[in-house]
Amino acid sequence: MRSIEWKDGVVEIIDQTQLPHKLVYRMLKTCEDVVEAINSMRVRGAPLIGVSAAFALALTAYHSKARSRDELLAELLRDAEALKSTRATGANLHNCIERVLKAALSQETVEAVKEAVVREALAIAEEDVRVNQEIGRVGAKLLRDGDAVLTHCNPGSFGTVEYGTALNIIKTAFKEGKRIKVFATETRPKLQGARLTTFELMQEGIPVTLITDNMVAYVMERGLVNAVVVGADRVFKTGYVINKIGTLGIAIAAKFYDIPFYVAAPSSTFDLESRPEEVEIEMRDPNEVLYVGSERIAPEGVEALNPAFDLTPPELVTAIVCEKGVILPPFDENIKKVLSTK
Amino acid sequence: MRSIEWKDGVVEIIDQTQLPHKLVYRMLKTCEDVVEAINSMRVRGAPLIGVSAAFALALTAYHSKARSRDELLAELLRDAEALKSTRATGANLHNCIERVLKAALSQETVEAVKEAVVREALAIAEEDVRVNQEIGRVGAKLLRDGDAVLTHCNPGSFGTVEYGTALNIIKTAFKEGKRIKVFATETRPKLQGARLTTFELMQEGIPVTLITDNMVAYVMERGLVNAVVVGADRVFKTGYVINKIGTLGIAIAAKFYDIPFYVAAPSSTFDLESRPEEVEIEMRDPNEVLYVGSERIAPEGVEALNPAFDLTPPELVTAIVCEKGVILPPFDENIKKVLSTK
Repeated sequence: MRSIEWKDGVVEIIDQTQLPHKLVYRMLKTCEDVVEAINSMRVRGAPLIGVSAAFALALTAYHSKARSRDELLAELLRDAEALKSTRATGANLHNCIERVLKAALSQETVEAVKEAVVREALAIAEEDVRVNQEIGRVGAKLLRDGDAVLTHCNPGSFGTVEYGTALNIIKTAFKEGKRIKVFATETRPKLQGARLTTFELMQEGIPVTLITDNMVAYVMERGLVNAVVVGADRVFKTGYVINKIGTLGIAIAAKFYDIPFYVAAPSSTFDLESRPEEVEIEMRDPNEVLYVGSERIAPEGVEALNPAFDLTPPELVTAIVCEKGVILPPFDENIKKVLSTK
Repeated sequence: MRSIEWKDGVVEIIDQTQLPHKLVYRMLKTCEDVVEAINSMRVRGAPLIGVSAAFALALTAYHSKARSRDELLAELLRDAEALKSTRATGANLHNCIERVLKAALSQETVEAVKEAVVREALAIAEEDVRVNQEIGRVGAKLLRDGDAVLTHCNPGSFGTVEYGTALNIIKTAFKEGKRIKVFATETRPKLQGARLTTFELMQEGIPVTLITDNMVAYVMERGLVNAVVVGADRVFKTGYVINKIGTLGIAIAAKFYDIPFYVAAPSSTFDLESRPEEVEIEMRDPNEVLYVGSERIAPEGVEALNPAFDLTPPELVTAIVCEKGVILPPFDENIKKVLSTK
């Protein structure tokens, strides 16, 4: 089951806002459809957002009526801008768009550009699948038989094309015969842990216990958890990690209880250029905090803050699992080293 | 506005499960009514649960048809047991019940026992009000003009007879003219922060911003918060603190960012006898995690954990504010010292 598929000029997605109660597929026909799907979190997860953006440009190219190469490139650049402004905190979005644009720019004719854009988007999607398999294989070595692993948000198949990043480490270890139990945080405000991670792990037969976000320190203090594995939306060259809001608190608690804190991130999630303070944390609609589904949980007129991500410093990260290997501290040396291996 | 009142053989409460959308009063006529109200969290907050239990025994005594002192005492002891088993983690519940029973045992006739029980329950309620005023006065000194204070759950007027503990520190500082802003955590699963704390602070005109529980580390990391004030359900003689689930994670993050972490607790919340490992953490219905109001947020069949409290170690506590003064570390010396002052 793939979260996203290219079907001859149409992008088919699973509408993740409907899970776990309904499995609804949606057909996206234009870049605007994809922008809407990203903004409303019908597709989510840094890797999947990157792939969705690549497919959005493929839709633009595929259906374009442009009569010259430059006209088509102008359309692609315009749509690339619209896509970049959707959920700007994640690195994959930017990296995938740049790859597609580069492929477009390397061609000389309208037809060649169209073909190259679609081909590159498909290649990005296939790579995501392969890279996740590799992350699973590499990271599973970090988990031992009997481990209870805490995870946050949904760094799983629904956040990627297939398999997932952090969840695929857990799934791979489980398939290798290790008895793994999982604690999944519900991940307010959008409840990706409650809705998606539990669903995904139950499908695989992996024992999972749902907790609210504020039970993380409790399960650690009681000795119920002996590893944390999370995903990432952006990893900086110094090892700073941007991930779903709540990750930082988990990392701090893990450090306090001396529990290893692992980050799973494909190389497309790394940003070797920017510094953390240059990347703005996406602030989302306060209504996501004020409501749960259709249920209003706070008085009328109250203010709410809704940062979608937080920034975890490298001293709280035990290791970063990339498809190219396990990256250990010091990250400012080792990230460059591991990423540059073939 | 009081959260609970004795009205000639009837106990009137605000049904807190209906807030903030509706202000519903309920009349409780028997001890069983009170047990139901505590179990379903119509009344909540360690001090208010203590007062509710005292009034429950007053209802038993007031309406009793017992013909001998011993018969009445047996009824009171039976109801005391039922009350103690409601939300056993809080210390006030136990302490208030013991006070009422002691008052009952000191009398010789049925009528004298009845009168003493009602009188003691009323005295406990009045003391709660006075003690909270004093906690506000004592604790307000810890807050400075311009402070942004994070609080958790609802250690406010709805968790006590009136005023509140931690929230009364904030309210008193605000009334003294200090410009105080508050960040209120929503406090899953029962959302006391979203529903009650925001409501209470808005009533007082104090600026309040609602956040989800997993945004605590974010607001600290961004420098948006410079003090934490929470309540307590039980404080041990060594300074260990049991409070609403999520408190421990906040305390760990506050320590990491070097932000003072204050606990407000009337002397009735202290337990100088037990050790932390002897007190069981109340585990509540997993459905509280699996639902928000009527909205189910997780797949059918998934397991959930629902501890109502956690245990914060003394090394994470900057000071405990009691009506008798501010208690500083070393707590194993100073708690005894401050509590024994008149």
